[in-house]
Amino acid sequence: MHAYELIKRKRDGGTLEAAEIAEFIAGYTAGSVADYQMAAMCMAIFFKGLNDAELAAWAGAMLRSGEVIDLSEIPAAKVDKHSTGGVGDKVSLALAPLAAACGVAVPMISGRGLGHTGGTLDKLESIPGFRVDLGVDRYRELVATTGVCLIGQTATVVPADKKLYALRDVTATVDCIPLIASSIMSKKLAEGIDALVLDVKVGSGAFMKTLEDARTLARTMVGIGREMGKKVVALLTDMEQPLGNAVGNALEAIEAIDVLKGKAPADLTECTMALTARMLMLGKVAETEPQARQMLQRVVEDGSALRKFGEVIEAQGGDKRVLEDYSVFAQAKQIVPIESPEDGYVTAIDTEKVGLAGVALGAGRARVDSVIDPAVGFVFEKKVGDKVARGQTLARMHINDESKGPEITQRILAAYRFGREPPASRPLVIETIE
Amino acid sequence: MHAYELIKRKRDGGTLEAAEIAEFIAGYTAGSVADYQMAAMCMAIFFKGLNDAELAAWAGAMLRSGEVIDLSEIPAAKVDKHSTGGVGDKVSLALAPLAAACGVAVPMISGRGLGHTGGTLDKLESIPGFRVDLGVDRYRELVATTGVCLIGQTATVVPADKKLYALRDVTATVDCIPLIASSIMSKKLAEGIDALVLDVKVGSGAFMKTLEDARTLARTMVGIGREMGKKVVALLTDMEQPLGNAVGNALEAIEAIDVLKGKAPADLTECTMALTARMLMLGKVAETEPQARQMLQRVVEDGSALRKFGEVIEAQGGDKRVLEDYSVFAQAKQIVPIESPEDGYVTAIDTEKVGLAGVALGAGRARVDSVIDPAVGFVFEKKVGDKVARGQTLARMHINDESKGPEITQRILAAYRFGREPPASRPLVIETIE
Repeated sequence: MHAYELIKRKRDGGTLEAAEIAEFIAGYTAGSVADYQMAAMCMAIFFKGLNDAELAAWAGAMLRSGEVIDLSEIPAAKVDKHSTGGVGDKVSLALAPLAAACGVAVPMISGRGLGHTGGTLDKLESIPGFRVDLGVDRYRELVATTGVCLIGQTATVVPADKKLYALRDVTATVDCIPLIASSIMSKKLAEGIDALVLDVKVGSGAFMKTLEDARTLARTMVGIGREMGKKVVALLTDMEQPLGNAVGNALEAIEAIDVLKGKAPADLTECTMALTARMLMLGKVAETEPQARQMLQRVVEDGSALRKFGEVIEAQGGDKRVLEDYSVFAQAKQIVPIESPEDGYVTAIDTEKVGLAGVALGAGRARVDSVIDPAVGFVFEKKVGDKVARGQTLARMHINDESKGPEITQRILAAYRFGREPPASRPLVIETIE
Repeated sequence: MHAYELIKRKRDGGTLEAAEIAEFIAGYTAGSVADYQMAAMCMAIFFKGLNDAELAAWAGAMLRSGEVIDLSEIPAAKVDKHSTGGVGDKVSLALAPLAAACGVAVPMISGRGLGHTGGTLDKLESIPGFRVDLGVDRYRELVATTGVCLIGQTATVVPADKKLYALRDVTATVDCIPLIASSIMSKKLAEGIDALVLDVKVGSGAFMKTLEDARTLARTMVGIGREMGKKVVALLTDMEQPLGNAVGNALEAIEAIDVLKGKAPADLTECTMALTARMLMLGKVAETEPQARQMLQRVVEDGSALRKFGEVIEAQGGDKRVLEDYSVFAQAKQIVPIESPEDGYVTAIDTEKVGLAGVALGAGRARVDSVIDPAVGFVFEKKVGDKVARGQTLARMHINDESKGPEITQRILAAYRFGREPPASRPLVIETIE
């Protein structure tokens, strides 16, 4: 294989063979294909794309760059969910125990928040003592016994992705759907899963701002799954406003626990149930969606989902008193109301701005090495479609460094749009792609 | 400047400011912009191009990455010629003394042959003793005294181009017109010239296979010259067959000497005179083309062009007896005729194949570090449009390693096309772009 020839062929719109892609990515991982060659290839892919077979080969080669976890000895169906990232998206924390309480095993390797979006690992770590660095052996053991394990990326799984992501990040090739899709799918398929539910967020708080881009990404990922013989379903869900009311790590963990108690905001509950129902169907513990939803309602009502989360927290070193006593979470020094400057209806919330206000508050990361404050964040009281009077509280800001208060209040107010009429309501689950 | 943002902007079809380009190229030369970022930028430029102002800024920044030779103390007009490369193109060897004999100074920094095309330096070095590594001081001195100096690239002139060319060569971004044009122009404008004539070759033996590409390259280079305040004229000339009859370094040097004696093949003579006439006009020693051609005819007829070449050879350490005694050149062991397999007319010669056959013979370089044999090559007796009988000699092969003879004969025969009718004749100078 000549790296040069493969770059040139892709640049000129040609097709790469699976064996060529495998060699190119193996060479990149080993260092015989140089960074500058991969950078040129990524830019060529940005312009010329990858077809279905190339995508599967690319994701498969990434996957095989490291350890592929084998969970085949665990009899339960192993199903994971992945979200493309949004603001207020704490679904995984409730979904994993819900699915496990219904008999589906959930092996979940997640990421941290970066930029305006949050990350599951940061939310889990807001539970005092909770550890996400367990290693593959303990992960396998917990999936087998508890039915859930929630950990972070390990050095041995998909090393090519770590190297490639760092390169894309400095060569303006991050926002490229084939590369995003194969990055996600390689990591998920290395977890040892049988099936996968994808939550592709679309809207102002998502990476995919348009329905068209989100649909392309979803279809691309479902296609990779199909080519690799895995069952994958994608839901396109709304991210035109924060999901649920809470944004910030401990605040979001609390809201996720509320889902398990049946008392969370309707949008968050619906998003969680829609995604978890798909997991039950893919895991063959339910045949139809109504049946799956009935099972989920039962494990909420009988407390078994909440108990399952308690088991998970305990197994991963966390303090499970958080489930009953939210004061066990870190508390912000001050809670400051942000008041509406207008009478009318909330017509929109620029959700990326909300996410970036959270970063400014310390709830998220501006850079990979930023330190997170688990206590801070926002709890929204008025969301899109709500009627509001001037002076009424739009959101409550949980803040530790009060000097930042005025600036962050302005950022939140700048994210809100008001009007005289309520906007047309939007569906939460926009589309399902199988 | 963030390299990332500039790559992204170019990728998305945006425009880079001159100061940004200057910083990006200075950063690349110094090492603060990484190879992989430049590779991504080059691929983005491959797809999105550079506008006139960006091209001038890019070429200017390259130019300023190293020494810009100052010849302003030399009173004569300083005009160079650059060819984009072809097969049998020995024009520079005759053109430089012709122009100098007419009073135009010719500061010429040339390259070596690579792949199917030859290089001026290799042809000059076939003259025993001729040195092309003289250094900038001696170069300046010879342009001032002899009126001509013919040397190779020095380490101090346009170092960014050396680094960038090596990168483009391994990232499939060589055949990108804005990068080719700014590479050529930065090197030529660093020579200390007032004006430049470009010979953009088009056809099967050129890098630009189509008239459209050649025209785009020519316009791009002329545009860079204009933006940088230099007079530049481009001639598009035919490279659908070797120029002249000789291919191979000593054989080509001999044919160039024949131009100075007024006895070279018509196509080579016409190409040389057309380009040199433009130099005389740009250098203001002639006002019109007929006047320029008359001057050129005079310096051939009175022997002053040939004497000028003798001065150049002597000044650069070469043996000027070659001008009168061609046996002073290295001689191949054998001269083998290649015979026509058909009766009819020669309708085409695939000129890249001829160039590659020359490489196989040892006349050119397959790789940068290949060693050249000055003696070997071909002298063509039948070219496009010529009538030929089966068994007649098409070309004579000058060969040292006779074991290669049969294979190279086959390559030459495979380059020829025959037909029952002569093909339509093609103009040698296809177009002039000012």
